[in-house]
Amino acid sequence: MSKKLFAEFIGTFVLVLFGTGTAVLGGGIEGIGTLGIAMAFGLSIVAMAYSIGTISGCHVNPAVSVAMFLNKRISGSELVGYIVAQVAGAIVGTVTLLSFLNLSDMSTKNLGQNGFGNIGAGGAFLVEAILTFVFVLVIIVVTGKKGNPAFAGLVIGLTLVLIHLLGIPLTGTSVNPARSIGPALFAGGEALSQLWVFILAPIVGGLVAAIVGKFALDSEK
Amino acid sequence: MSKKLFAEFIGTFVLVLFGTGTAVLGGGIEGIGTLGIAMAFGLSIVAMAYSIGTISGCHVNPAVSVAMFLNKRISGSELVGYIVAQVAGAIVGTVTLLSFLNLSDMSTKNLGQNGFGNIGAGGAFLVEAILTFVFVLVIIVVTGKKGNPAFAGLVIGLTLVLIHLLGIPLTGTSVNPARSIGPALFAGGEALSQLWVFILAPIVGGLVAAIVGKFALDSEK
Amino acid sequence: MSKKLFAEFIGTFVLVLFGTGTAVLGGGIEGIGTLGIAMAFGLSIVAMAYSIGTISGCHVNPAVSVAMFLNKRISGSELVGYIVAQVAGAIVGTVTLLSFLNLSDMSTKNLGQNGFGNIGAGGAFLVEAILTFVFVLVIIVVTGKKGNPAFAGLVIGLTLVLIHLLGIPLTGTSVNPARSIGPALFAGGEALSQLWVFILAPIVGGLVAAIVGKFALDSEK
Amino acid sequence: MSKKLFAEFIGTFVLVLFGTGTAVLGGGIEGIGTLGIAMAFGLSIVAMAYSIGTISGCHVNPAVSVAMFLNKRISGSELVGYIVAQVAGAIVGTVTLLSFLNLSDMSTKNLGQNGFGNIGAGGAFLVEAILTFVFVLVIIVVTGKKGNPAFAGLVIGLTLVLIHLLGIPLTGTSVNPARSIGPALFAGGEALSQLWVFILAPIVGGLVAAIVGKFALDSEK
Repeated sequence: MSKKLFAEFIGTFVLVLFGTGTAVLGGGIEGIGTLGIAMAFGLSIVAMAYSIGTISGCHVNPAVSVAMFLNKRISGSELVGYIVAQVAGAIVGTVTLLSFLNLSDMSTKNLGQNGFGNIGAGGAFLVEAILTFVFVLVIIVVTGKKGNPAFAGLVIGLTLVLIHLLGIPLTGTSVNPARSIGPALFAGGEALSQLWVFILAPIVGGLVAAIVGKFALDSEK
Repeated sequence: MSKKLFAEFIGTFVLVLFGTGTAVLGGGIEGIGTLGIAMAFGLSIVAMAYSIGTISGCHVNPAVSVAMFLNKRISGSELVGYIVAQVAGAIVGTVTLLSFLNLSDMSTKNLGQNGFGNIGAGGAFLVEAILTFVFVLVIIVVTGKKGNPAFAGLVIGLTLVLIHLLGIPLTGTSVNPARSIGPALFAGGEALSQLWVFILAPIVGGLVAAIVGKFALDSEK
Repeated sequence: MSKKLFAEFIGTFVLVLFGTGTAVLGGGIEGIGTLGIAMAFGLSIVAMAYSIGTISGCHVNPAVSVAMFLNKRISGSELVGYIVAQVAGAIVGTVTLLSFLNLSDMSTKNLGQNGFGNIGAGGAFLVEAILTFVFVLVIIVVTGKKGNPAFAGLVIGLTLVLIHLLGIPLTGTSVNPARSIGPALFAGGEALSQLWVFILAPIVGGLVAAIVGKFALDSEK
Repeated sequence: MSKKLFAEFIGTFVLVLFGTGTAVLGGGIEGIGTLGIAMAFGLSIVAMAYSIGTISGCHVNPAVSVAMFLNKRISGSELVGYIVAQVAGAIVGTVTLLSFLNLSDMSTKNLGQNGFGNIGAGGAFLVEAILTFVFVLVIIVVTGKKGNPAFAGLVIGLTLVLIHLLGIPLTGTSVNPARSIGPALFAGGEALSQLWVFILAPIVGGLVAAIVGKFALDSEK
């Protein structure tokens, strides 16, 4: 199992470093913009799914792991290990981004953290729960019994691009507690006080997706 | 059959929420632009094809379902059920987008609805019929007897990106009556009075594509 | 054979209408830009490869057909038929774009035609020959004996995106005599007087690619 | 073996011509920007993987070849031959770009060369080593024993898009000594004096990836 946890650590490290890193470093650069940031998050999943995914399945997201646990695809001890590895990977990803920023003499409080924007706690919860529901529903089915294992990584990555296109203007898009925890720990302030939403809402959305996938879309049989 | 209809409902909900939502929320944001909106519509199809598509085939579009019915791939009762589910999904997708907008204190009459632009009813009809002809022709063949089921969802999604690149400057791109009905019901005004074109033209284009696919491109044998 | 020619006609019609149409209609629209135009050309190939390509192989380009003929994949009579169908499709594609422009009251001499830019006839010849060499080399190998038929359409389409990213600033990117003939006939002027380069250079580049593919990359065995 | 070396020569030629060429020629053009440049590098890999890759495996990068050698996938003499062919291809790619620029009367010292930016030698080394580690890790696993040969070229290309999205604002992104040597030889100045970092750091990152892939991700068994 230690190889699986190492794989999840690397995968979440890459997702957070490249996703939030592109958001921060590419923020003022013409031609990255929202589409480029969305692609950085999505292509991180493509890259990791076909590499570390061969070992761990490439959850790199506690909301995904919780959904997989609910549908009995991983055990309880695997769930705990995966989440610890994911959060650790996210933190190291943010530390790495911080070191890049320090080397660049860029002093910024923007670490690609998530926030309510102007929609409030309830609005952010609704948005994140719906976004994660769609994201995890795709994951649960495309990796399930009727799924398409060869295409799964590509499809899931492109789905995450999609999720970000809609979500960036609203909450910055989390759909992943680990991805929110990493930057929030170092950004502090609102990122930290609002963090609970970006932990709870994705898990709720993911659990609903697991249930809908299982009973309505036959993902487990 | 109820699982199929639920699947179509979810699929069209996602297409309308993410497609029109990206158009509305990302309208003023650098780096989404026409390409980002086109990708939101196209990637919605990729995401849904490999998830709810395993149950229903992922039509999420009455013009597609009518073409499939003409080529005897679904029954008449399935056709009716599919269309009802698709329109319902589109309406709930628009309602969800409205709730996001209300939470954001964004008051707008722009819900990503389609319109004639400056080409008039006849021009919009011509444009939509041609765009839908191309879109449904690809669908009919790639999901047909000589097709490529594993790639179909990716190819159809990328084709919808293409359709939007050309169509957005002209009509906003419908090629899908359900996608037009949802926003029009809430935007009202011209969106409603011009709606007939975005219902009829895609169906005409789709039917022609079904015939051309069957007799000229051997899609059914 | 008539089905093959009809398929080539439709394919080239789509390539020219969507490719040059996106260049013309999306010219002044934020967020299409060079990348969006490049994607319109490339995704046209993806869409057509998996639809009309099941019948004709989706050459939609005389430079490709000439290369295929040299490597004995099509006969001489097929070559002639394919080229006629491709040029006819390109002309109808341009006429369709013209009708869209007239309906929009857009009076423009820009039909997405190719031109020397500021590199002169010799420079344009060199650029187009090299671009087409790379494009056709990929086509010849990925559709050849050691190739990957399932991925071929996607790979060739993405290669055409690449070709346009480099070529648009130089010549507008032809790599396809039919794609240049259609717009030039209606744009007239320099587009017509410079047309010979965009007919000859792609054919030269394609022929060299056929030879290199066969003897250096074992495309035929 | 000469066919393999010719294949590597062509592949690296295409990578450098299209990647750095898009960066230089598309620099001032709206709509190419960082995302377009990133896609040019990535799609060069997609194009080459499915064409010259059928002969040589499409390393087109000494850091990749060194990693492959460490994991015993190529011999020592192949390694030397590959690197020579790659550097030669990169030089001819830069010469070709120079000829395009001269024909265009564009006098520029920008040839898409890599540089420290404002992060210094140590920072650039860290960045390039990490970027290359991620890039080569994906390559080693997706082309390894548990990998997915059919998708490998697409996945690796999309990973290179990702790598550029983060790396362009920092160092311009090398992750490939050959890609840095070509432009540096003709740009001179800082590009040449800083070149050692863009040779050493990718090789270090690639070697670490080979080891991690082998022992932690079971890439060789």
